Amino acid sequence: MVNYMAVKIILLHGSPRKYGAVSKLIHIAAKGIKDAGGEYEIVYLYDYEIKECFGCVSDDQRICRFPCIIRDDFNNLADKLLRSDGFIIAAPIYWYSVPGRVKNFIDRLTSLENMIIHTGRSLLEGKTAGFIVSGNDSGSIMSIAYLMVTLNSMGVHIPAWALAYHHTPEDVLEDDQAVSDSYNVGYIVAKMASRIRGVKEWYKAIPDNYLDELKKYTVEKTREFTWQEKQRYKYYEGINS
Amino acid sequence: MVNYMAVKIILLHGSPRKYGAVSKLIHIAAKGIKDAGGEYEIVYLYDYEIKECFGCVSDDQRICRFPCIIRDDFNNLADKLLRSDGFIIAAPIYWYSVPGRVKNFIDRLTSLENMIIHTGRSLLEGKTAGFIVSGNDSGSIMSIAYLMVTLNSMGVHIPAWALAYHHTPEDVLEDDQAVSDSYNVGYIVAKMASRIRGVKEWYKAIPDNYLDELKKYTVEKTREFTWQEKQRYKYYEGINS
Amino acid sequence: MVNYMAVKIILLHGSPRKYGAVSKLIHIAAKGIKDAGGEYEIVYLYDYEIKECFGCVSDDQRICRFPCIIRDDFNNLADKLLRSDGFIIAAPIYWYSVPGRVKNFIDRLTSLENMIIHTGRSLLEGKTAGFIVSGNDSGSIMSIAYLMVTLNSMGVHIPAWALAYHHTPEDVLEDDQAVSDSYNVGYIVAKMASRIRGVKEWYKAIPDNYLDELKKYTVEKTREFTWQEKQRYKYYEGINS
Amino acid sequence: MVNYMAVKIILLHGSPRKYGAVSKLIHIAAKGIKDAGGEYEIVYLYDYEIKECFGCVSDDQRICRFPCIIRDDFNNLADKLLRSDGFIIAAPIYWYSVPGRVKNFIDRLTSLENMIIHTGRSLLEGKTAGFIVSGNDSGSIMSIAYLMVTLNSMGVHIPAWALAYHHTPEDVLEDDQAVSDSYNVGYIVAKMASRIRGVKEWYKAIPDNYLDELKKYTVEKTREFTWQEKQRYKYYEGINS
Repeated sequence: MVNYMAVKIILLHGSPRKYGAVSKLIHIAAKGIKDAGGEYEIVYLYDYEIKECFGCVSDDQRICRFPCIIRDDFNNLADKLLRSDGFIIAAPIYWYSVPGRVKNFIDRLTSLENMIIHTGRSLLEGKTAGFIVSGNDSGSIMSIAYLMVTLNSMGVHIPAWALAYHHTPEDVLEDDQAVSDSYNVGYIVAKMASRIRGVKEWYKAIPDNYLDELKKYTVEKTREFTWQEKQRYKYYEGINS
Repeated sequence: MVNYMAVKIILLHGSPRKYGAVSKLIHIAAKGIKDAGGEYEIVYLYDYEIKECFGCVSDDQRICRFPCIIRDDFNNLADKLLRSDGFIIAAPIYWYSVPGRVKNFIDRLTSLENMIIHTGRSLLEGKTAGFIVSGNDSGSIMSIAYLMVTLNSMGVHIPAWALAYHHTPEDVLEDDQAVSDSYNVGYIVAKMASRIRGVKEWYKAIPDNYLDELKKYTVEKTREFTWQEKQRYKYYEGINS
Repeated sequence: MVNYMAVKIILLHGSPRKYGAVSKLIHIAAKGIKDAGGEYEIVYLYDYEIKECFGCVSDDQRICRFPCIIRDDFNNLADKLLRSDGFIIAAPIYWYSVPGRVKNFIDRLTSLENMIIHTGRSLLEGKTAGFIVSGNDSGSIMSIAYLMVTLNSMGVHIPAWALAYHHTPEDVLEDDQAVSDSYNVGYIVAKMASRIRGVKEWYKAIPDNYLDELKKYTVEKTREFTWQEKQRYKYYEGINS
Repeated sequence: MVNYMAVKIILLHGSPRKYGAVSKLIHIAAKGIKDAGGEYEIVYLYDYEIKECFGCVSDDQRICRFPCIIRDDFNNLADKLLRSDGFIIAAPIYWYSVPGRVKNFIDRLTSLENMIIHTGRSLLEGKTAGFIVSGNDSGSIMSIAYLMVTLNSMGVHIPAWALAYHHTPEDVLEDDQAVSDSYNVGYIVAKMASRIRGVKEWYKAIPDNYLDELKKYTVEKTREFTWQEKQRYKYYEGINS
């Protein structure tokens, strides 16, 4: 029985300031993780050396693999993610997005995702993630939308309400919604990670002959709508009558 | 035992053209749903009357509730979503986003989400969703990022790789990646919906006294970093040395 | 001498509520236009019938042209834009973007932009635009980023600080930044439109032989960096040393 | 007569690879600048040391000013921008956005923009900018939308079609649209910069008494729509009839 162990969620702290709003919200998310029966570890990205990705995939997609060839702390950080069930990225909003350091970290995650080329599987497949951002002005949803679509593209689950933000100059602890939502980012990420634990593979590789079958099937299915094209002109008329 | 029944996934077809790329990819996603043991229903949004939201929440947040007061087909469409375990939005890319009709449909979903105000729960909470978009140029990721962050904010899960897109003028069936990804959007959404079935509540409401406790806790936790501020100036120096 | 006439800026009002925050900010923008020596007209999009685009370009890119074949008020609205020097889109934020009605209007602008196919020129080329959005929560920058990249792709200039937003539940007139910025959206759009008046063509069509020349030129220019590839491995080493 | 001097446009090269698609498109944009009568300088961001912003503004908005206190090459790079009339950011697409290094550069531009706090003027006010991105997959419009809204918020003009992208694995020189658009990014940026040269101030500071007047004016203007609210319920009925 695998589920007796608590899930482990990594809290990635992406601010140079350990005493600011991001820090406050990350500790609240940590409580949410605990209350969902999980364990957590806070990782301060600014305590590590994370050099920038220099885009090996642009030279040859097969060069890029994990562990990354760049010698710094990234591979150790990535190991923490690999041994976890999920992670939460908490970052300040710098110009409607995450800071350059966090972006560099994301760029380096390519080495985990690109293992698809080598083994058919992203090393981040099936992890669960959530996002917390804080700033004193706009850009919160833009930052989070960016993180969501990027991590989801690497094979990461985004459970319901995996987002919290604070976007005014007031103290974040005056913002009950941000506090409650941050708690829930932790709570829900841990709950989801716990619920789907043990499922290793999500993307189903499709054999070539099945791919052909799928294509024939969809052509057949849409063929019944070729008459539609004529009806369409009626529709045009309908719109104009 | 509730899980013996197949999960039901709604395929929301958001194109005026029933014979185009969106249609082809939606049938392929349908196969993915079936292969994951689920059932599906294709709903052609252009076959229904969907009037535009006129923003009752801007007058008074308490006015907006489900069923929506606007008399058209929306409430029946919404009922389909409510009786489902998840849904997939498949749409053409019109200027880097979904068409106005699909946006109108999303705007109207407010009546489901805003039940938070009345009952504490979004009616979309815990549904699982995926996204397929198609166009002959750019804007695919921007469209999908928009859909992800919006639906996630309504309480919807986004499982791994819940995205597929086609963004060139060539026939979509020449694009094996789009075909394989669309299949997997169906497959993974159904698999996730099946896996988390029966979990009705995800967001945990926080009683006021616990909210206070959380705030005190985080102040305590970040206090240990007040010395950090001084260290920070060392950090500044470190950067400059 | 063409510049003795005032520039004309259309204020597109994209809210169903004529008495709300969008209305307040639009009147303030109107003052900015006047103060820059321009004239304005407020157009309430909700007073017109704007049917949805049904994507003729997806059937055949050559079908779509202005005037649009759909019979409703769009062509008259478009005429207002064509006779103007610029326009400002002011809209409420519905789920991190503009309402479906405004999106439908944008979708229909395709008929103006797609004239590139027929005459080499977008009918919106050289217009100047600005953007004002208002909501009681997040999504302001995401809405504006969407509008900017879309209109710019149609050939529209976006002058400095062509954006204003309000994103809290407080009355918008308490938000001096939003008021000042909205004024300046009007002021700057009119100022820019006035400054560049008379320039009809911006995009320069490139003859085939010049296109070939450009390609040869850039190959030559980047060739000098082929040695770079080797140096690159030194760079790799540099990073790792 | 101020216009006898050619405008100067900086081409910011944001790729670690000097021989790739970004390099090719940047040389083509350079030709566009020349053909518009401008001069250019290519600046390879990867040749300079650009440390990351550590967010002084989060501690106290007044700390941040130009020149930035961090000792590296940024202030010299910024000087190039300040002595120019405009700039073009050309970058590869790393996960639907610019690479971390380019993001770090953008973060550091805060020191130029934040001079608003000190002098009322962003040091980037009135510059003209354009954007070129290249990748072998999706994310081009998302990257460009991000750059547009960010630079525009710093006071930078975005002229018509200030965007070019390449988003397939084929050689960029096979993509005539990308080549022609890149040329035009250079051409149009230079043309616009030339046209508006000499205009130093765009944002108009509003004295307090005028701010009050504006607020009264807009209240008066929207008051005439209070009857609208009642009409609105008729509108509701109209929608439902």
